[in-house]
Amino acid sequence: MKTKMRILPLVLLCIISFCCSAQSIQWQEIAPGVWKGIAGTPDTYNLLQAAGTTASPALQKLPKEDFPLDAAEISFQLNNGKTYLRFPLVEEEQLFGFGLNFQTVHQRGRIMQLHMDHYGTSDNGRTHAPVPFYISSRGYGVFVNVAKYIDVYAGSHVRRDSKNPPPVQDRNTDDIWNAHPYSDAVEMLIPAQGAEIYLFAGPKPMQAVQRFNLLSGGGCLPPRWGLGFTQRVHRLYNAGQVRNEARLFEEKGFPLDFIGLEPGWQSKSYPCTFEWDKTRFPDPAGFIKSMDSTRVKVNLWTNPYPAPDAPIYKQILPLTGTHTVWNGAVPDLSIPEAANILFGQFEKAHVKIGVSGYKIDEVDGYDSYLWPDVATFPSGHSSEQIRQTYGLLVQRYSYDMFRKNNARTYGLVRASNAGGASFPYVIYNDNYSHQDFITALINSGYAGVLWTPEVRASKTAEEWLRRFQTVCFSPMAMINAWSSSMQPWTFPEVAPQIKAVAELRMQMMPYWYSEFARYHYQGIPPFRGMSLEDGFSQGIKKEKVQASLQENPYEEAVTQEVKDQYMAGEYLLVAPLFTGQTSRKVILPKGKWYDFYTGKLAGDGEVITITPGMDRIPVFVKDGGMIPMMPVRLHAPAKGEKVDLEIRHYGDKNGSYQLYDDDGETFDYEKGAYSWRKLTMEKQAGGEWKGAITKPEKNKINTVGSVTWRHMAP
Amino acid sequence: MKTKMRILPLVLLCIISFCCSAQSIQWQEIAPGVWKGIAGTPDTYNLLQAAGTTASPALQKLPKEDFPLDAAEISFQLNNGKTYLRFPLVEEEQLFGFGLNFQTVHQRGRIMQLHMDHYGTSDNGRTHAPVPFYISSRGYGVFVNVAKYIDVYAGSHVRRDSKNPPPVQDRNTDDIWNAHPYSDAVEMLIPAQGAEIYLFAGPKPMQAVQRFNLLSGGGCLPPRWGLGFTQRVHRLYNAGQVRNEARLFEEKGFPLDFIGLEPGWQSKSYPCTFEWDKTRFPDPAGFIKSMDSTRVKVNLWTNPYPAPDAPIYKQILPLTGTHTVWNGAVPDLSIPEAANILFGQFEKAHVKIGVSGYKIDEVDGYDSYLWPDVATFPSGHSSEQIRQTYGLLVQRYSYDMFRKNNARTYGLVRASNAGGASFPYVIYNDNYSHQDFITALINSGYAGVLWTPEVRASKTAEEWLRRFQTVCFSPMAMINAWSSSMQPWTFPEVAPQIKAVAELRMQMMPYWYSEFARYHYQGIPPFRGMSLEDGFSQGIKKEKVQASLQENPYEEAVTQEVKDQYMAGEYLLVAPLFTGQTSRKVILPKGKWYDFYTGKLAGDGEVITITPGMDRIPVFVKDGGMIPMMPVRLHAPAKGEKVDLEIRHYGDKNGSYQLYDDDGETFDYEKGAYSWRKLTMEKQAGGEWKGAITKPEKNKINTVGSVTWRHMAP
Repeated sequence: MKTKMRILPLVLLCIISFCCSAQSIQWQEIAPGVWKGIAGTPDTYNLLQAAGTTASPALQKLPKEDFPLDAAEISFQLNNGKTYLRFPLVEEEQLFGFGLNFQTVHQRGRIMQLHMDHYGTSDNGRTHAPVPFYISSRGYGVFVNVAKYIDVYAGSHVRRDSKNPPPVQDRNTDDIWNAHPYSDAVEMLIPAQGAEIYLFAGPKPMQAVQRFNLLSGGGCLPPRWGLGFTQRVHRLYNAGQVRNEARLFEEKGFPLDFIGLEPGWQSKSYPCTFEWDKTRFPDPAGFIKSMDSTRVKVNLWTNPYPAPDAPIYKQILPLTGTHTVWNGAVPDLSIPEAANILFGQFEKAHVKIGVSGYKIDEVDGYDSYLWPDVATFPSGHSSEQIRQTYGLLVQRYSYDMFRKNNARTYGLVRASNAGGASFPYVIYNDNYSHQDFITALINSGYAGVLWTPEVRASKTAEEWLRRFQTVCFSPMAMINAWSSSMQPWTFPEVAPQIKAVAELRMQMMPYWYSEFARYHYQGIPPFRGMSLEDGFSQGIKKEKVQASLQENPYEEAVTQEVKDQYMAGEYLLVAPLFTGQTSRKVILPKGKWYDFYTGKLAGDGEVITITPGMDRIPVFVKDGGMIPMMPVRLHAPAKGEKVDLEIRHYGDKNGSYQLYDDDGETFDYEKGAYSWRKLTMEKQAGGEWKGAITKPEKNKINTVGSVTWRHMAP
Repeated sequence: MKTKMRILPLVLLCIISFCCSAQSIQWQEIAPGVWKGIAGTPDTYNLLQAAGTTASPALQKLPKEDFPLDAAEISFQLNNGKTYLRFPLVEEEQLFGFGLNFQTVHQRGRIMQLHMDHYGTSDNGRTHAPVPFYISSRGYGVFVNVAKYIDVYAGSHVRRDSKNPPPVQDRNTDDIWNAHPYSDAVEMLIPAQGAEIYLFAGPKPMQAVQRFNLLSGGGCLPPRWGLGFTQRVHRLYNAGQVRNEARLFEEKGFPLDFIGLEPGWQSKSYPCTFEWDKTRFPDPAGFIKSMDSTRVKVNLWTNPYPAPDAPIYKQILPLTGTHTVWNGAVPDLSIPEAANILFGQFEKAHVKIGVSGYKIDEVDGYDSYLWPDVATFPSGHSSEQIRQTYGLLVQRYSYDMFRKNNARTYGLVRASNAGGASFPYVIYNDNYSHQDFITALINSGYAGVLWTPEVRASKTAEEWLRRFQTVCFSPMAMINAWSSSMQPWTFPEVAPQIKAVAELRMQMMPYWYSEFARYHYQGIPPFRGMSLEDGFSQGIKKEKVQASLQENPYEEAVTQEVKDQYMAGEYLLVAPLFTGQTSRKVILPKGKWYDFYTGKLAGDGEVITITPGMDRIPVFVKDGGMIPMMPVRLHAPAKGEKVDLEIRHYGDKNGSYQLYDDDGETFDYEKGAYSWRKLTMEKQAGGEWKGAITKPEKNKINTVGSVTWRHMAP
């Protein structure tokens, strides 16, 4: 508040003069290694406020760090009603983040407008999670807590008065002339009279990411069943068909933890009634009960725009925006009462009879479906603000509803933003490039969101298998067959391999669950890019393109970057193959890495070329890595059910791992009902390996049955 | 002013309350059929002000018309610091315009942000001329005179309180469910506290376009030589090579009126010095003199960003923006003194020794080359405002310089905007889709700009010829060989056809010149879309796509529209073919149409399919059409030179045409030194045709030699 007060008179001066000079930001350390700065007079509505999350207590327990930049080099300026921000860059510094990008990982040099939208095949800032957060390879992070469209110039432009100006070249004769002269700053344009900014220390990039995630409450902790397999059925399936689908999974021995119903469960969709269709689902409660009895939970598709026929329509109408979406009203969810009405209906009609979660569609874009920016809302928040935060709001209030019922949920959402890390939702979209899906998985880890490279359909068995393999190494292992009606066994020639990797997904549940616990309690993203991994130093290469000036008039270089391998949890490096690929390069960070399946040494801080065949997705384990696994099962363990574990260990180094445990279904962990147990594997004098597990913490839950130890050696 | 004063207190109220209700606009008739409306408090800097043009006196002479819309249905709202505009639409109404689009002609239903930029292969509002002007098929036009990025929802969205709401459908079961419900309004979001708006009556769409063009001074009138042929040579050619190029044209008998030098004429480029390179051009004045002696004028490429080495650098530096473009400074051309310094250098070093014009590059985009929106400028205008108007400013001040020297110019520019119709510049870009180029030619006529589908290079003789044929039926007949070094005769197998169409271009000069005069004096675009033609009633068709939901999840229909034929002047319909095409459909408006080459009846208000062969571009003439032509020549007539004419007449109807004449090179026409002469062709009692030409107006120039009359009949 002090900062605000001091700057206010200046702001007024600027508004009057329409131009003022750069000012430095006053920073306040709000947690160890986390500073908050106020530029000008920020909007009162921002991303963290929309998300409504409170910081994780873990944030205060991180070690103290120095302010990671020269504060004098960070400046802002108020001009023409906007806020201009400037952050310094040094040579060789690399930038990551700026939301859920699909084609690029390295962001230095790029220009975007962070704008909530579907991904339209270009990384221009329009995406399902346009998170205004970036991480530097130098080990700090910057977050601009603004719910507006932010223009970002991520080291793309040069000021006349730059302290580190690029050399002036003559294009007529200098071969080294470059269309993009060196730039020493990230600049942002914020359409507001100020901005709230957070700066996160490292010392390593990972710690900056952790601090960012902890600020929004830590990552989400899904129920155990959320990490099993999920199938979304054809949009017009009726209760019998859905039950039959689940039965087929059981009969054929394919894992299935929850099933997703698409629009046809509703009496009307686009716009939606949120009511069960009486023809297709005459007895919803009975249907869900019978599904539950087969250990398959039910997830419901919806978008949040009530049809005139919806029972809540009249009640919510005064709390909706001026414009419609497919003739549905647009609840102003920044008004809690609107959220109460909408999710009150959800609770009554769905959650109370056992619905486990939602797929909340069309809260991102694209422009011609969503409300336009000329819409106004009863809260007085601009259409732009509502657009930037709608994904957060639907997650927040639906999550609150589940919390009230003490049942964890895990669902899908098409839009999120900064502050949403703690919401148990996975982002998806309509795009279907397998390559882009993997790049998005990498970028999700820089953005505090989860992403699924969902499998929808495939033209060939190879594609079906390759996609399936990657989705099993992602936050949500899903087939979305809403229009294709495809099933895991649709291509019989690869059905055994599909089953094998689905079973592996289930076996690895203790690992996945612990990794999500690390996301929740420590802010470490379970799926993330290689740049957050120690010892990975692959930078970007700019390659001159050998095209004529005709085709490339500005002699643009092409950026070569690693965007097809990622880290899954503490120890695993995943290097998927795409259709048509038979071999690929894998960049192994410093140290020894082992084949996940055989334990064989794969390489030591080097680039390897692998030709792995079709059956398995290449996965590598860090030296000393430990992976807790359970027996193959078709469903996640029930609440409190004891499960036997096999702890795998890889490499030469002694291993250690923190295994997380709780009831897997409720919010009791928030009251302390959880346990971390340390697993260790140590080489004995005789050369044999010996594993140990600590006792469950006092008064804490224990679902671990027998433990076997397995040193993986070829 | 009255309007402003009345609304001001309301504006303040709105700013305080952050939301206010819709208000109607007070309209003032400023010319017959032209109304100006003020919403809120508009920015003081706008497009017309940047262009600095004054309305053509012809604007006041147009007939009086009724206000073309229900004023009560036009409203604005001030909200969150922005202006929301709303204009009504009725069923079947079609919209055209919204700037230089490249892929679409019909704009109803589209969403764009009108944003100065290069065309990036999608019509999203980012283009070289993001003109905030649209024309309705109902015969009115709307122009929003704002130099900001304007969000346009051209009949794409539905308000809850719509008076003409679309039917609510259920996607689950209704086959006619539509992802885009019917919308009854154009809405715009203007990032300013108000807007100045112009409404133009028809009664036909063409008259709305004319009024718009006349408001910005009428269309440009190029010198005669500008309508001849132009070749742009390789970027590093020296004086000898350029002279040789011109000699080759002369020797081979290919027309050539002006030649364009690319960056290498400057001592340094990217950033630019604006000085001749002493090695490649040791004697610039002598070089130009020698070119002039062969009747070939010289045009110079440049961008406007001075290098630190430029002689004007130090002087202009205080008048430049904070950011650089390729290390060059960015003159704030909204400050007249900055323009004086820049164009003072141009005048001294180029124009005074006979340079005829410029190709002014890189004043459009794209974002990573131009100054960022965080840049500030000494005028206090925002970067956004400077960006939207930079193309206007370079045209305005360079044109002023030529006017001062009483020598007309005709050049190229990469950016323009509303208000620029009177500037003698043709827009071009780096894109190279022949199809998009034709669609842009169509759209140029709705935007008050000129566009050239320039020929740069081709892989095949067929492509070379097809492109060449269309560029000869465009505002500037040009090969741009800056990197390809190609020449008209590069493909010997089509060189005769190339020569034939280049010669035709020259022969038609009296027609082209008169058509540009109509653009100047009456505001009728010389090249334009079919929708402005009487009797052309092709609407748009929405076709359901037979793709799976997998590939087309929202069941988007595809719009089928006519975007490959256009009107060239009063009487000609051009229907180009693209590489690989051997036949095509042509939609002939109501009435009889004749083959341009043979005079044969082609059809009567119908869709015909033609298979014209390679040699000629299909061109059709309206019944009664008259085309004045001159003999084949390699260069445009000199100032005052008398030229013999052949007047062609087509069809059954008696013909009439207004032939324009002046000295072809100076601005003396502005003082009245011009002449309109009426050509008529009438069928005599005996069936033979007789032509007549009126005398030149008193005291007016006359460059017409002998006149022969030719009724074109097969």
